[in-house]
Amino acid sequence: MQDRIQDGSHIFIFLDGKRNWIRKVVAGKEFHSNKGIIKYDDIIGRPFGIRIESHSGTVFQIHRPSQTDIQIAMGRNTQIVYPKDAGTILVEAGISAGMRVVESGTGSGALTSILSRAVGPSGQIFTYEIREDMFNGARKNLEKYGLTENITMHHQDILEGIKEEDIDAVVLDLATPWELTDEAHRVLKPSRYIASYSPTIEQTMKTCKALGESGKWGMIKTLEVLEREIMVRENKTRPTTWMVAHTGYLTFARTMVVDDE
Amino acid sequence: MQDRIQDGSHIFIFLDGKRNWIRKVVAGKEFHSNKGIIKYDDIIGRPFGIRIESHSGTVFQIHRPSQTDIQIAMGRNTQIVYPKDAGTILVEAGISAGMRVVESGTGSGALTSILSRAVGPSGQIFTYEIREDMFNGARKNLEKYGLTENITMHHQDILEGIKEEDIDAVVLDLATPWELTDEAHRVLKPSRYIASYSPTIEQTMKTCKALGESGKWGMIKTLEVLEREIMVRENKTRPTTWMVAHTGYLTFARTMVVDDE
Amino acid sequence: MQDRIQDGSHIFIFLDGKRNWIRKVVAGKEFHSNKGIIKYDDIIGRPFGIRIESHSGTVFQIHRPSQTDIQIAMGRNTQIVYPKDAGTILVEAGISAGMRVVESGTGSGALTSILSRAVGPSGQIFTYEIREDMFNGARKNLEKYGLTENITMHHQDILEGIKEEDIDAVVLDLATPWELTDEAHRVLKPSRYIASYSPTIEQTMKTCKALGESGKWGMIKTLEVLEREIMVRENKTRPTTWMVAHTGYLTFARTMVVDDE
Amino acid sequence: MQDRIQDGSHIFIFLDGKRNWIRKVVAGKEFHSNKGIIKYDDIIGRPFGIRIESHSGTVFQIHRPSQTDIQIAMGRNTQIVYPKDAGTILVEAGISAGMRVVESGTGSGALTSILSRAVGPSGQIFTYEIREDMFNGARKNLEKYGLTENITMHHQDILEGIKEEDIDAVVLDLATPWELTDEAHRVLKPSRYIASYSPTIEQTMKTCKALGESGKWGMIKTLEVLEREIMVRENKTRPTTWMVAHTGYLTFARTMVVDDE
Repeated sequence: MQDRIQDGSHIFIFLDGKRNWIRKVVAGKEFHSNKGIIKYDDIIGRPFGIRIESHSGTVFQIHRPSQTDIQIAMGRNTQIVYPKDAGTILVEAGISAGMRVVESGTGSGALTSILSRAVGPSGQIFTYEIREDMFNGARKNLEKYGLTENITMHHQDILEGIKEEDIDAVVLDLATPWELTDEAHRVLKPSRYIASYSPTIEQTMKTCKALGESGKWGMIKTLEVLEREIMVRENKTRPTTWMVAHTGYLTFARTMVVDDE
Repeated sequence: MQDRIQDGSHIFIFLDGKRNWIRKVVAGKEFHSNKGIIKYDDIIGRPFGIRIESHSGTVFQIHRPSQTDIQIAMGRNTQIVYPKDAGTILVEAGISAGMRVVESGTGSGALTSILSRAVGPSGQIFTYEIREDMFNGARKNLEKYGLTENITMHHQDILEGIKEEDIDAVVLDLATPWELTDEAHRVLKPSRYIASYSPTIEQTMKTCKALGESGKWGMIKTLEVLEREIMVRENKTRPTTWMVAHTGYLTFARTMVVDDE
Repeated sequence: MQDRIQDGSHIFIFLDGKRNWIRKVVAGKEFHSNKGIIKYDDIIGRPFGIRIESHSGTVFQIHRPSQTDIQIAMGRNTQIVYPKDAGTILVEAGISAGMRVVESGTGSGALTSILSRAVGPSGQIFTYEIREDMFNGARKNLEKYGLTENITMHHQDILEGIKEEDIDAVVLDLATPWELTDEAHRVLKPSRYIASYSPTIEQTMKTCKALGESGKWGMIKTLEVLEREIMVRENKTRPTTWMVAHTGYLTFARTMVVDDE
Repeated sequence: MQDRIQDGSHIFIFLDGKRNWIRKVVAGKEFHSNKGIIKYDDIIGRPFGIRIESHSGTVFQIHRPSQTDIQIAMGRNTQIVYPKDAGTILVEAGISAGMRVVESGTGSGALTSILSRAVGPSGQIFTYEIREDMFNGARKNLEKYGLTENITMHHQDILEGIKEEDIDAVVLDLATPWELTDEAHRVLKPSRYIASYSPTIEQTMKTCKALGESGKWGMIKTLEVLEREIMVRENKTRPTTWMVAHTGYLTFARTMVVDDE
């Protein structure tokens, strides 16, 4: 019965790309929006994946919150790592079940939650956040969605050092990633990936320079991933007029063993 | 000692983006390229992540093959699903540890291998391929890299029906995906994702039409993901001159429960 | 003294990409914005290209209106043809001094003004607009900026026929361009260009089909032009977060002589 | 009869996007390609815009060379400014009939020819090229297509100074454009444009810095223009697989009058 909505379930209420919400179902209470009211009692016991009409006649979809739904909900009002970027990090850095991954900063926890699901119960995420407000916000976010099982949160400046070793991937979304490349190399197993996300080209240039000059990294490359939505409507098919043109540059490199004697 | 190269290990030999190879190490044998020869005996026992000079003086990097390395190696000479697309499918469709995923066609097995790693040992991939040559090629590829543990391969036309039920995601790379949308809905749990990859806009239009007209799907959307490589070189930083401008359109939709009585 | 601001001059008042205006200077009057007031008497007699402080301390730039400034001002509140598209039309269709060009629809007159300047005093633009409100609006726009010299405006449905002959280029921004391709061929000189702008892929497909099946056109091709703005700021250089991701598809073809006996 | 092919005409022979040639028709001679031979005598007297079959059965199109055809032919084997970039320069910098434009370097002459046609017989292009081989090559190119009428060519380093004054636009494709911004300002009329094309982001950053710090320029902006070709084929419509992902960054700025007393 896991796919039935229950008292206490998180639900994703969807109207369109801009009007959607994640809410916790509470028996006897209601969801309010300017498109009408939904009584939670009317949906408890029904399956996820239903359409429901509000009292004022608008039809909403009710879904089980997906990874992307949660990520977007977490990221509201903060800078988020988009699915296109998160997905490219997962595949390019080979992050998968059972891995031990270091992340910094935690930020909203949105990327943390994606990494957490990617490594699964047999893996582990170690995430560092220096700012107290961010740290607390992310903890609240992750607890809310029950995602803390395989996540270790450090309220700490990662530049002071990484506490873990034998790491499979290091994922950075830092203002000065070039200051952490040596430390990342120290804790990573050989032939493993660092992935660094930076909004500006200057950050990217400094990071690539630090990686390259150290001699400790191979296969250094920088990608920019762009996503366009195509509106497929009969006789009106076209890309959306506006798109997010830039989120950040993704730099990847792989640990080399400099001295293996 | 898992990170030491052994007799029988697969290694990724890297020179640059175009010249790289996955090879199986065999004691007493050699790797040959037009940039020189590497004796496998010279690297057995050393760690992954080393640089090694060929007899003619070219320096190669030796890595443990990553998911992307394997995917690219598998895809040589066939059409592949790129990391940018595979990653977006993983994140948008929420594919993660423990899930049961149906895929068709198997093709080279490259996307199959990414899905396999994403769902991990506790998940399962069911992949359908109608063409015998592709089926055998993919089986050989997947066996070669030891990826068959959680993969069930069907040499069968998926349009004749999906054998499994209670599926968490259906991933399609078919010539006529619109013929499979009803069947996909039948086997998917509620509020789960279909992800369909098509190179042409006409395929995409037909798929969206089939999804929309059935009334069985919510949150239908189509994305196109573009990836640019940025050459970060001091005083020469610029995107590469050429890029892959189009691989395919990605259409996502989520199962709605039409009749929940 | 043509570069001095005079009573009656049009000026382009620039604060930033979103806050800029074209105004006519009137002695004794003032320009009002929520960033302060500029007295026209304070700038009459001074050169174009000055900075001027409003009474409330904001610094505005005062420029002679350029083609792009005018085009953007004309296009406010209507769909415009962007510089990137207009420029590509000019160069791909080889539109230059002395040419006779047919355009439809006139729309806001923004593209008309660009074509007008491109063909210069020795060329001629013939522009067709079926909608009375658009026709009058465009006429008012073009008269306002003194651009009517080489423009003939028809308040007429171009599908009823083109009145001119011996045309060097036909530029279409129509809902159904495929209905006009034969007529365009009739009036174009041999080996000359049609350029058709359409927002949707279905329009583009029908246009290409009509061009191709007639056998009357060669070198049919469709382009999409994308423009990104790069914010170049020290240590903060990056593309803008949002961009116009799609304006329209540009289809070009060249008249073939089918029967030259 | 200007649209009939004559002995001595330049013709554009088109097979597809990669196989096309500009040739001069010589009575009694032949065009040779690996798709067959065309006797010029067979086309003399016929109109431009015909299809003609070679002796081996391939159908070629014969066109009057357009601006873009010439530009591409000139640019073969050198770096060219693409139509998308050239068109954006024309429209953004407002280059049109009657203007006086300074360009450097001349390069292959391809952009020179576009500028020449844009300003027409009443305008003037002053182009500077330091390298002797480029200078001679461009002169030969421009003479070949009869484009020298309104072009003044200087075999000279533009960094030593611009000889002309009262200029309407300065268009730069230089290795170090930031060294020329003050000189460009000196010769430009007020409220006119500089347009600088640079392949790398470092060049673009230095140019923007020089423009900004001088205080002499307003409305500084940098654009990157991307062009995709869409293959519109029934049931196979899709963007081309590969595209030119980067040519260069275009920086525009407008002269301010710093001291108008």
